[in-house]
Amino acid sequence: MTRDVIVRDVGPRDGLQLVKAVVPTETKLDWIRADVAAGVPEIEVCSFVPAHIIPQFADAVDVATEAAKIPDLTASALTPNLKGAQIGFTTGISKINYVMSVSETHNQKNVRRTRAESLEGFRAIVAARDADPNLKGVKIGIGLATSLGCTLEGNVPESETLSLLEQVLEAGADEVMLPDTVGYAHPTQVRSLFSKAIPICGDVPVWTHFHDTRGLGIANALAALETGCIRFDASLAGLGGCPFAPGATGNIALEDLVFLLESEGLKTGVDLEALAVARAIVEAALPDERKFGMILKAGLPKGFVPASQIAAE
Amino acid sequence: MTRDVIVRDVGPRDGLQLVKAVVPTETKLDWIRADVAAGVPEIEVCSFVPAHIIPQFADAVDVATEAAKIPDLTASALTPNLKGAQIGFTTGISKINYVMSVSETHNQKNVRRTRAESLEGFRAIVAARDADPNLKGVKIGIGLATSLGCTLEGNVPESETLSLLEQVLEAGADEVMLPDTVGYAHPTQVRSLFSKAIPICGDVPVWTHFHDTRGLGIANALAALETGCIRFDASLAGLGGCPFAPGATGNIALEDLVFLLESEGLKTGVDLEALAVARAIVEAALPDERKFGMILKAGLPKGFVPASQIAAE
Repeated sequence: MTRDVIVRDVGPRDGLQLVKAVVPTETKLDWIRADVAAGVPEIEVCSFVPAHIIPQFADAVDVATEAAKIPDLTASALTPNLKGAQIGFTTGISKINYVMSVSETHNQKNVRRTRAESLEGFRAIVAARDADPNLKGVKIGIGLATSLGCTLEGNVPESETLSLLEQVLEAGADEVMLPDTVGYAHPTQVRSLFSKAIPICGDVPVWTHFHDTRGLGIANALAALETGCIRFDASLAGLGGCPFAPGATGNIALEDLVFLLESEGLKTGVDLEALAVARAIVEAALPDERKFGMILKAGLPKGFVPASQIAAE
Repeated sequence: MTRDVIVRDVGPRDGLQLVKAVVPTETKLDWIRADVAAGVPEIEVCSFVPAHIIPQFADAVDVATEAAKIPDLTASALTPNLKGAQIGFTTGISKINYVMSVSETHNQKNVRRTRAESLEGFRAIVAARDADPNLKGVKIGIGLATSLGCTLEGNVPESETLSLLEQVLEAGADEVMLPDTVGYAHPTQVRSLFSKAIPICGDVPVWTHFHDTRGLGIANALAALETGCIRFDASLAGLGGCPFAPGATGNIALEDLVFLLESEGLKTGVDLEALAVARAIVEAALPDERKFGMILKAGLPKGFVPASQIAAE
């Protein structure tokens, strides 16, 4: 089917990175397969980081290798450095997302490098991909963490975000994410940033990534939608760490995002009733984590016809 | 201070009507006083219904009488009929809100009358107020339940809502609410309805009232804001019954609504840190109810200056 908007479940990566219980590889793959069965077109399946830093991703190679084989799925993975990217390249995955922060302080805390060093690291990954003809189809994306605010620096000037955006485009980014990493953004701010970033990016896709730390995540997604953005990260059940730790709470719930988009008449390709199967897997695997997301508990409105179920004329 | 937007805490009424634990009168008043101390300008303090139907409101006269004495507060109360209004008139409260549904089926289920009978009932309340010179300052509002959808009838045509709106204006409504009673609405629908309703109402204030049953409540408030609406119902901690029963879940959380509005540069007059005192009262009084609302748990963004704290030039 033709999709008007693309949603990505970042739950297996962002949703799990602060979860203490290590989810078995097969359960992660069950979740990923259930997502795909429901029509989710893209999933961030893991992070290539050393197992001693995040034990949850000790099985990243296995998860990515299996996910890369699933038809109708764009499987992406996160990496903070060249080494992680090189491991990722061996798995057959079609997209590697690098991460650095707009906030210098946050970048130093998060990846222990200056922004200049991070940019160099990104260029090295692009060069490594370009040097290997077997990796021709692999896309290298980059997320500019704290694009909309930082718990350490507070407000992040829009000009800083746009300036770094231009640098990463020059460095060869195939895709860009402008995350509200810590849930500081409000709709007017989102509209302003995305309405400027999208034209700057031209043919390079721009993704939103909203954490719902302060309750405005879905409203921010709506604001981004109004600027013409059509790519949205979210996490099934709104997973993403402890809701009491600023900077570490969950993404907007994938299911509520899909309900927003389908209500607005946009085809996501996702069947909410089928997505409930994926949510049940997550609920069974993580009984002690707080789950968010309302639509699958409340049920679809009586008589509601999702845009994705309306036949094209 | 001058407010750009008016928020109303409907928690003591809508938030409590399905709560099984009867909250003591003094606790309700502590909550109301803490709201007012935080700058909440209006509160729906109770519902005038027979105690055998909703035991929670057996103390409605006491609560309303005390609330009516609080300086800087517009205390309103709900009533489904003339008898309730007449009880309300004795309390000194300055606003009585009547309720009927746009959906005929819902109206019959909710208040056991036809819409025509409900309209007659509304006219009788307006006439009773008009007949008593002592009630000159008392406003009679009306909420058109299911304005944006109905669990029994499904979609409610916008033309039906607008037609009933014109009838209640003719009947003398001083204020109107267009609630999304069951959490079916989406932003485009909200924008469409409010952009038509506000001009029809002219000088008569129009209120939003969003339940967050399906996760779109704050996005819907944003959509209404974009149409020029400046009056918003919400409920502290998002109280409002069981989140698993369609049609009975909580309102949008007052604190997250205030954060949205203040972030957007609009003065609500509400101090979020002071509102935490009111929330603590609710949390202590209702330990077994599910509480929503993110901002007071996450804390304000670093360096955030609420619009209400910016001095007028």
